[in-house]
Amino acid sequence: MSHKVLILNGPNLNLLGLREPEIYGSQTLNDVEDLCKKTATDLDMDIDFRQSNHEGTLVDWIQEARVSFDAIIINPAAYTHTSVAILDALQAVEKPVIEVHLSNIHKREEFRHTSYVSKTAQGVICGLGPQGYELAMLALSRLLSSQ
Amino acid sequence: MSHKVLILNGPNLNLLGLREPEIYGSQTLNDVEDLCKKTATDLDMDIDFRQSNHEGTLVDWIQEARVSFDAIIINPAAYTHTSVAILDALQAVEKPVIEVHLSNIHKREEFRHTSYVSKTAQGVICGLGPQGYELAMLALSRLLSSQ
Amino acid sequence: MSHKVLILNGPNLNLLGLREPEIYGSQTLNDVEDLCKKTATDLDMDIDFRQSNHEGTLVDWIQEARVSFDAIIINPAAYTHTSVAILDALQAVEKPVIEVHLSNIHKREEFRHTSYVSKTAQGVICGLGPQGYELAMLALSRLLSSQ
Amino acid sequence: MSHKVLILNGPNLNLLGLREPEIYGSQTLNDVEDLCKKTATDLDMDIDFRQSNHEGTLVDWIQEARVSFDAIIINPAAYTHTSVAILDALQAVEKPVIEVHLSNIHKREEFRHTSYVSKTAQGVICGLGPQGYELAMLALSRLLSSQ
Amino acid sequence: MSHKVLILNGPNLNLLGLREPEIYGSQTLNDVEDLCKKTATDLDMDIDFRQSNHEGTLVDWIQEARVSFDAIIINPAAYTHTSVAILDALQAVEKPVIEVHLSNIHKREEFRHTSYVSKTAQGVICGLGPQGYELAMLALSRLLSSQ
Amino acid sequence: MSHKVLILNGPNLNLLGLREPEIYGSQTLNDVEDLCKKTATDLDMDIDFRQSNHEGTLVDWIQEARVSFDAIIINPAAYTHTSVAILDALQAVEKPVIEVHLSNIHKREEFRHTSYVSKTAQGVICGLGPQGYELAMLALSRLLSSQ
Amino acid sequence: MSHKVLILNGPNLNLLGLREPEIYGSQTLNDVEDLCKKTATDLDMDIDFRQSNHEGTLVDWIQEARVSFDAIIINPAAYTHTSVAILDALQAVEKPVIEVHLSNIHKREEFRHTSYVSKTAQGVICGLGPQGYELAMLALSRLLSSQ
Amino acid sequence: MSHKVLILNGPNLNLLGLREPEIYGSQTLNDVEDLCKKTATDLDMDIDFRQSNHEGTLVDWIQEARVSFDAIIINPAAYTHTSVAILDALQAVEKPVIEVHLSNIHKREEFRHTSYVSKTAQGVICGLGPQGYELAMLALSRLLSSQ
Amino acid sequence: MSHKVLILNGPNLNLLGLREPEIYGSQTLNDVEDLCKKTATDLDMDIDFRQSNHEGTLVDWIQEARVSFDAIIINPAAYTHTSVAILDALQAVEKPVIEVHLSNIHKREEFRHTSYVSKTAQGVICGLGPQGYELAMLALSRLLSSQ
Amino acid sequence: MSHKVLILNGPNLNLLGLREPEIYGSQTLNDVEDLCKKTATDLDMDIDFRQSNHEGTLVDWIQEARVSFDAIIINPAAYTHTSVAILDALQAVEKPVIEVHLSNIHKREEFRHTSYVSKTAQGVICGLGPQGYELAMLALSRLLSSQ
Amino acid sequence: MSHKVLILNGPNLNLLGLREPEIYGSQTLNDVEDLCKKTATDLDMDIDFRQSNHEGTLVDWIQEARVSFDAIIINPAAYTHTSVAILDALQAVEKPVIEVHLSNIHKREEFRHTSYVSKTAQGVICGLGPQGYELAMLALSRLLSSQ
Amino acid sequence: MSHKVLILNGPNLNLLGLREPEIYGSQTLNDVEDLCKKTATDLDMDIDFRQSNHEGTLVDWIQEARVSFDAIIINPAAYTHTSVAILDALQAVEKPVIEVHLSNIHKREEFRHTSYVSKTAQGVICGLGPQGYELAMLALSRLLSSQ
Repeated sequence: MSHKVLILNGPNLNLLGLREPEIYGSQTLNDVEDLCKKTATDLDMDIDFRQSNHEGTLVDWIQEARVSFDAIIINPAAYTHTSVAILDALQAVEKPVIEVHLSNIHKREEFRHTSYVSKTAQGVICGLGPQGYELAMLALSRLLSSQ
Repeated sequence: MSHKVLILNGPNLNLLGLREPEIYGSQTLNDVEDLCKKTATDLDMDIDFRQSNHEGTLVDWIQEARVSFDAIIINPAAYTHTSVAILDALQAVEKPVIEVHLSNIHKREEFRHTSYVSKTAQGVICGLGPQGYELAMLALSRLLSSQ
Repeated sequence: MSHKVLILNGPNLNLLGLREPEIYGSQTLNDVEDLCKKTATDLDMDIDFRQSNHEGTLVDWIQEARVSFDAIIINPAAYTHTSVAILDALQAVEKPVIEVHLSNIHKREEFRHTSYVSKTAQGVICGLGPQGYELAMLALSRLLSSQ
Repeated sequence: MSHKVLILNGPNLNLLGLREPEIYGSQTLNDVEDLCKKTATDLDMDIDFRQSNHEGTLVDWIQEARVSFDAIIINPAAYTHTSVAILDALQAVEKPVIEVHLSNIHKREEFRHTSYVSKTAQGVICGLGPQGYELAMLALSRLLSSQ
Repeated sequence: MSHKVLILNGPNLNLLGLREPEIYGSQTLNDVEDLCKKTATDLDMDIDFRQSNHEGTLVDWIQEARVSFDAIIINPAAYTHTSVAILDALQAVEKPVIEVHLSNIHKREEFRHTSYVSKTAQGVICGLGPQGYELAMLALSRLLSSQ
Repeated sequence: MSHKVLILNGPNLNLLGLREPEIYGSQTLNDVEDLCKKTATDLDMDIDFRQSNHEGTLVDWIQEARVSFDAIIINPAAYTHTSVAILDALQAVEKPVIEVHLSNIHKREEFRHTSYVSKTAQGVICGLGPQGYELAMLALSRLLSSQ
Repeated sequence: MSHKVLILNGPNLNLLGLREPEIYGSQTLNDVEDLCKKTATDLDMDIDFRQSNHEGTLVDWIQEARVSFDAIIINPAAYTHTSVAILDALQAVEKPVIEVHLSNIHKREEFRHTSYVSKTAQGVICGLGPQGYELAMLALSRLLSSQ
Repeated sequence: MSHKVLILNGPNLNLLGLREPEIYGSQTLNDVEDLCKKTATDLDMDIDFRQSNHEGTLVDWIQEARVSFDAIIINPAAYTHTSVAILDALQAVEKPVIEVHLSNIHKREEFRHTSYVSKTAQGVICGLGPQGYELAMLALSRLLSSQ
Repeated sequence: MSHKVLILNGPNLNLLGLREPEIYGSQTLNDVEDLCKKTATDLDMDIDFRQSNHEGTLVDWIQEARVSFDAIIINPAAYTHTSVAILDALQAVEKPVIEVHLSNIHKREEFRHTSYVSKTAQGVICGLGPQGYELAMLALSRLLSSQ
Repeated sequence: MSHKVLILNGPNLNLLGLREPEIYGSQTLNDVEDLCKKTATDLDMDIDFRQSNHEGTLVDWIQEARVSFDAIIINPAAYTHTSVAILDALQAVEKPVIEVHLSNIHKREEFRHTSYVSKTAQGVICGLGPQGYELAMLALSRLLSSQ
Repeated sequence: MSHKVLILNGPNLNLLGLREPEIYGSQTLNDVEDLCKKTATDLDMDIDFRQSNHEGTLVDWIQEARVSFDAIIINPAAYTHTSVAILDALQAVEKPVIEVHLSNIHKREEFRHTSYVSKTAQGVICGLGPQGYELAMLALSRLLSSQ
Repeated sequence: MSHKVLILNGPNLNLLGLREPEIYGSQTLNDVEDLCKKTATDLDMDIDFRQSNHEGTLVDWIQEARVSFDAIIINPAAYTHTSVAILDALQAVEKPVIEVHLSNIHKREEFRHTSYVSKTAQGVICGLGPQGYELAMLALSRLLSSQ
């Protein structure tokens, strides 16, 4: 049976490809979703791809994963650095989590160097653009299969 | 006439009893609500017990207390450490506030040792589990009666 | 043609005039909106004046400005000090931004001295009360006309 | 059989009611002791209520609890913020500990925001005045009965 | 009767328009003075516009305002971040003070993010170029008229 | 009637003149007491001169001053930098306090640069050797006479 | 033509599989090398896999990449947190760099949370075990092909 | 022969008695000078009493003391916390220095708690008002006589 | 003639062997004293072995060493990290001092990593259990014999 | 044509050779000027050698260099560590700047380790005594000739 | 059978006795080795005594201990404060480690107060000169015999 | 007789001229060596010019200078900021040391602003490119001749 993976995108990622292409590249979030769907097909994975600008909504969605998903891929965007609520939700869910960032956050402003999510994520991939989602899916696919 | 008390619960408390029982115990939020209702009856108090994962919703609810409640009991959970908006709302309401935490936040990670809410709360009770809500209600009952 | 300016107000500003008048003055947010509308008429400007307690809603609204407004005036209130998401949204919009605070935040508690929004705003006006909005509109009017 | 609880009061609490009533209220330490005794009777608890200005004496008394008491309630006053010796003594005793503060220490000077005792106490109650002792006794009563 | 306002400019502002135009613009300090004079005429205000590279001279001039002026507009430039003497002088004068910066100091080096002057100024305007002086004059005009 | 002044000396001052004369000089604590007594006679002051190595004892003695003395001169020695209990005792007593140090603590190790006692003392005299006590007595004499 | 990739392993990675398997897993460095070789074959990539405990040797090897390799994958191990020399070497080489860590360094001791290498690496993958190398190779394969 | 003492007063002390009397008292700097002159007569001391708002002028005057005075009393006011130049001048002069502050700087804002001048002064007297000058003169009189 | 060595034990060491054996081992303080006495006999040393929970008592005892002992071995326990008074006493005594800790304090909580006593002790031995006392005695024996 | 170089000396350098010779050597500022003049002759350079204790005067002089000099050598002395005004002036002048210190400031007190001037200077020479000026002149001579 | 102990000496210890004898004493490293060999004979221990200035070489040697030695004594010298690689190697080896320093590092510069090695060493001995090695051997001898 | 000077270059300086020419210029290390040799001839100095990427090798070479060289010029490159071992070696050698940096390290990233080497070097020259070596040689030539 296919593994079900929830892929969450944090605030302003809906503008991907539209803003600051020198940092985030020119692909839109729809492009990323397409890439993920294609990868899911290849990996026989079942994904649900969502985006929200609301911290609370992201927490709600993460909680859904307790019963409805096998793992989470999250690009928390700005909430990476400020949201203890998302950290707590991820810890409560007790499913594998991989954190993805399109840009290498360690090369940007000081306040972007720390991540609450990294305190609970199994793995972190950053700086590899949309491909980071694909690599995270690949890693989860193997991890879930080996359990 | 009964005093009206608003009891607010922050993010992820809806998972109480379901997650990390070694930290939060095995009682669910419904159990806590039942305990509070039973205590309210004993104290002839009128309570409204709510939970939200959304910072903004908590702010909205706190503002309600300006005209509709006599006091607030709040377990801000993750927003304890990050929300100036909740602090400002509580200050604006100008009603007695008691802050409750199920676990002793001072025995956990460093970033959980500071509370914006404590800067305005009249009292703080932490580490005593669901009983902390009951003690807060007891304290408010006397305080409101003596005003 | 009139310039279109989005005027955003952060959490608890809906209580303006009702709470802590020694800090925020006795004018309500409606009074401020009226002042802004009157000023808009004088400047032949088209404004949309909104308030929300929700960080995510503020982010949504800022994103609207990408296509529907020429500039933003924002009083981020409590989110000034905690919201990287609002900072990112403002940067993504790439329109002129003026940050307004009713009180002089530098004379208040230490944690109110830093602003994520100031990292991207073109200008900052604080401590001048509701008039700050009016001055911001005046400044934007000239800026937009000179472009 | 009644539970035996040691109630300890740190430096300058013997001046309670005599100094700074705007912070500590007008009740004297004798009033607090009377309140505790009355509560003890209600709870069928056996208490020993003591005060000392000497850190070493407080350490000696805490050590007594290893064999002679079932639990400790401690208001460490000024030693809250400076005494590793009291922390070590409480840890060595391995009995339930509840930390009580009359005022909300988080609303006072920065150096009063940290507590060595909180690193080992099961629960912390602060800002609720003498009633804090009563709530602590109530909490211990249940805890000890459930063991 | 016209209000008398002292407009002070700190070190290196005499080079305005000559240095780093990408930060400070191309207008000279004379241009700014002309703008202020024109604005003063419009507002029926009486201004005295001065510049000095000497901290002590700025202190002397601020002290003058005790008897000879109704308010102060100050662009303290480099002394913003280092001069307690100017802070003390402004506090001693007990007249309304508005702090103006041509650039948004919060977008520049870390050491330019703190201002001693902001600890006493009624309002702060930064990042709006020479127009900041004009807005400050407008704000003072209303403030002085309403007293 | 003579004013009664309590003169307190903290830990290790009983070794004065015996240890590290390059820092503390060659006069013994008895010499200092004799100097103070002679000065008391000149000023028609009634003094009680004490020394203890015990923080708790110093707190006990300070509390005595509530009813038995008009003012306190204290050289808290090592407890200057570590004792919140002494700070609290001095604040509770609500009598004039002058803090004296034989050496200039600001020229010594970093951890000797901060004083809890200075947060409540009316005046501080340091670096002037035993004469510091005499000057403190002189200052108190005038202060008490003027009340 | 195959792309040539230099894969470098820092100090103590030669003990992989032999030490602390709860952190680093049970695979040896030879196992990792085999995995990389197999992946290289799949990707038609040419790799050189090396390990050294010497910071200087790692610097020497990185410099080699200027002329002999198209990209670098580096697991700097302990030198991640202390070596500016490795950072400088990587910057001097001006080839794509991906940093890999077997464990999630953000979940370990504080001093392991910062990485000099991340200041220059294009991408970072951590916490995904030996598979991290494979994902890095996959990412580089695409990157190099697209250039 | 009389000892010659230079008494220096830093910025804004010329406003003494005119500003913030709750901090600095109601005596003017002329009153302080008169007090000092009277004391000088009593002690057969020769004083020169000066004030400047200019750091450079204070440095110039301190340098004068190398050949023309036996000691310095300095109330550096705001320059206490910011002037390394005054510290260096005092060290270069190699004459006894006593630092005087009218208020207890340790009870004021954080940035007033550190003094560059204290790093070289023989003694420091603060919080005792104008009498502090008199006590400093008394101390110097004895010190100079004993040399 | 035998050398006389004072062996001092700080707060809570009287509970040794009774508390937290995973940190402190299962030997009681009496066992340690017996070990020290046996070692003293072997080394022809004369020891006085004491314990107190009172900082002031430890200071008193250290002062005794000025005339009655040739050296001090001290395990300051909790006072290691908080007592400037013990540091000052040890400096005043001017006899060789060896600091001993049963556990390796550098592997425990952050606040146990700093020692005031280490600022004056000739040597420090930690983490070697009761044997640490024996090694300290051996080291002192040679040191005293070589003087 | 000769290059014109402005050589500026900060506060207290006029006392060179007279104060603290163990730090600054025994040569006077006149000696340094003579050395510079002789070097200027050798290099066919035209120098203007000045000293001031006034920060504002140094700023005035630096501004002169905009039109009248080709480069600046500055020993800012105490203002090195405190003057943003001098930094701003040097940046505004846009001429080559070499910073010189007679002593190695990195071996002195902590607060002398940071330099605002180094943020803009092309080169820094410290610890080489008066010869540092000569080396700076030599460096500038080549630099100016190569432009 | 004899226990095998590896004794490692870090950078610059080969200069022992030749440099800064006031800190390190006059014995050479050969003298220390002789002392250790003599002690080894007495304890029936088998030692290998080595020194290197190379961090990588020390790591290599520590790794050897995994199979060839029963315990390690290490004086990491300068690498104490900077080498995470040595810490990791010691942790990987999983043999008893005792850290030795000839001088008391806590009495030296601030940056010498922290030790990465202490985070894993069983015991630490510092300030007792070459005898520290001997005491470490004695301690290990007992420890290894008791296993 | 010629003075013998050891000129050491730290990690990555062998890439000089090949990497980041906007920071380090276009001259290669061979060019720098040629410049130094030519200067040595002019000054009748005997130099040995070396480069290594290995911290340990640099320490070895510095130790050589104890017997074989009269002085050291060192450009420690990346090890400037991280190597206590190099600092210790330089201190042990007790010969004059001049530290050279091609770029002005104070204008670069924060972690490049501190230098362990500066704690012992007699002089520091930075930001003057290869000419810095020449100036250092000139300075040493005079210093050695004057000894």
